[in-house]
Amino acid sequence: MKYIYGIDIGGTFIKYGRFDENFNLLEKWELPVDSSKFAERLAPFVAGGILVDMEKQGIKDEDIIGIGMGCPGTITADTVIHGADNLKLNNISVVKAMERFIKTEIVMENDANCAALGEYYFGNGKEFDSMAFLTLGTGVGGGVIIDGKLIKGYSNAAAEFGHIKVDDNETKACTCGLYGCLEQYCSATGISKLSGGEFTPKEIFTIIKYPEFSESELYSKVKEIYDRFSYKLAKGCSIISAVINPAVFVIGGGVSNAGDVLLDGVKAEFKKLAYSGAKDTEFKISGLKNDAGIYGAASLFKR
Amino acid sequence: MKYIYGIDIGGTFIKYGRFDENFNLLEKWELPVDSSKFAERLAPFVAGGILVDMEKQGIKDEDIIGIGMGCPGTITADTVIHGADNLKLNNISVVKAMERFIKTEIVMENDANCAALGEYYFGNGKEFDSMAFLTLGTGVGGGVIIDGKLIKGYSNAAAEFGHIKVDDNETKACTCGLYGCLEQYCSATGISKLSGGEFTPKEIFTIIKYPEFSESELYSKVKEIYDRFSYKLAKGCSIISAVINPAVFVIGGGVSNAGDVLLDGVKAEFKKLAYSGAKDTEFKISGLKNDAGIYGAASLFKR
Repeated sequence: MKYIYGIDIGGTFIKYGRFDENFNLLEKWELPVDSSKFAERLAPFVAGGILVDMEKQGIKDEDIIGIGMGCPGTITADTVIHGADNLKLNNISVVKAMERFIKTEIVMENDANCAALGEYYFGNGKEFDSMAFLTLGTGVGGGVIIDGKLIKGYSNAAAEFGHIKVDDNETKACTCGLYGCLEQYCSATGISKLSGGEFTPKEIFTIIKYPEFSESELYSKVKEIYDRFSYKLAKGCSIISAVINPAVFVIGGGVSNAGDVLLDGVKAEFKKLAYSGAKDTEFKISGLKNDAGIYGAASLFKR
Repeated sequence: MKYIYGIDIGGTFIKYGRFDENFNLLEKWELPVDSSKFAERLAPFVAGGILVDMEKQGIKDEDIIGIGMGCPGTITADTVIHGADNLKLNNISVVKAMERFIKTEIVMENDANCAALGEYYFGNGKEFDSMAFLTLGTGVGGGVIIDGKLIKGYSNAAAEFGHIKVDDNETKACTCGLYGCLEQYCSATGISKLSGGEFTPKEIFTIIKYPEFSESELYSKVKEIYDRFSYKLAKGCSIISAVINPAVFVIGGGVSNAGDVLLDGVKAEFKKLAYSGAKDTEFKISGLKNDAGIYGAASLFKR
């Protein structure tokens, strides 16, 4: 039997998955990371997690088809990570460092792109030829896949959906320095801000889902926030649609744990905002949830 | 010698080009069309223009590699034209009708996509792997090509750049029924409207190009219109960039005859509006001008 490891590198956990050659997930686990020494320790740390598993399972280097990794930031063709500022990873090649520990093919891709690949091949994008994946977490990221091909952009800046300008009148700057970015309204932080810090995204979506448990005044207040969120996200999606007209939008990230209640408003607004030929574009919530990243990292060995 | 015909079907003229097998344009001509009987006469009309040329040149059916055609509207995989409302072409297959007259392979693609292919292979997109082509004419259309592949969208509605929402506060509807579409500001009609009907796009760009010939009051007035146009087009491009991050924007269509003066304002605004990793995206004016369509139609036989 041959194996593929799919790794998802994040700021608090590194997620691991061991897959067979047909991309069936055999086992998954995660290890907490100490971000203060993240950069210098990352390669042996990631490799260690795999080596322990290989030892336990009696897997040899030659049994491994490859190790795929997803990581924040821009991964250039020479496997170097750039600008993963939150993790203090810049100008570092984890791939090259890891090749000293395990003799197999090791590849790396941006984490949002990995999650998109996971959804496209194994999640709720799998019945569609083309997909725009939006991840609503601390920020808003994403990935575009058309006919099995990841669209990365000439400077690796494609699918920066969080920085589509969706508000002309915004006076507060986004973390990127621009004004009116999608991320300012549809990330977890953005949604909280829409509510003036009064509600978490989870509270908002729960109240909308179970209106019978809320007083009408509270419900109206939350409904207004929900409507604003829905409008902004639908506007972003209608713009993406006018550019690439994907067959499906898949929404992932922590905020998507709300489930289909998140989609109801977005779908209704999208029908109003999208160009006529694209109004029936499908919307889905992530099917793989937190596992999208490890699936997608493994799928880098799909050939 | 083998030949390819590239045809560009428009509302007032049908443009023809005869190319050799290496896509060198050997001869081009155009024929005026009578749009009142456009639909029923189109196939014999288009074929006639080719047959006359074949007769003159002594070209036989078997000397022809193929005939490529660009046409407004949506061309589905069965070669049927849908929704080319201006030309009253709907639910008609010109390809199938023409196959009765000339025995060769005949293919058809949307005209904006053809113009994009022309620029990508033979015009100002040819040094770049990925390109967004915007055509500023009566409306605003376009095409996206990434690694030689045309992005058409699941319902053939990709690259509908004219209907990207770039203004939240617009109260007048676009021809498509939406509000604040790029087309409402950056098409030839849109630019005139920006000036309250006072100036044509040509007048605006000429005054900006030669400020020394205008009184300062007139210049200021026109500069304001030019700045609004530049901002809207740059905003549209920054949004396209956040989705696909193309290496170059090529601007074609009648409005682009203004030349590089059109780009100066757009490039400056784009630097302010684009996401950090994409600020140095290149901008070019169409290199093939009115011939982009016939080149692109011929390029459908590039394999």
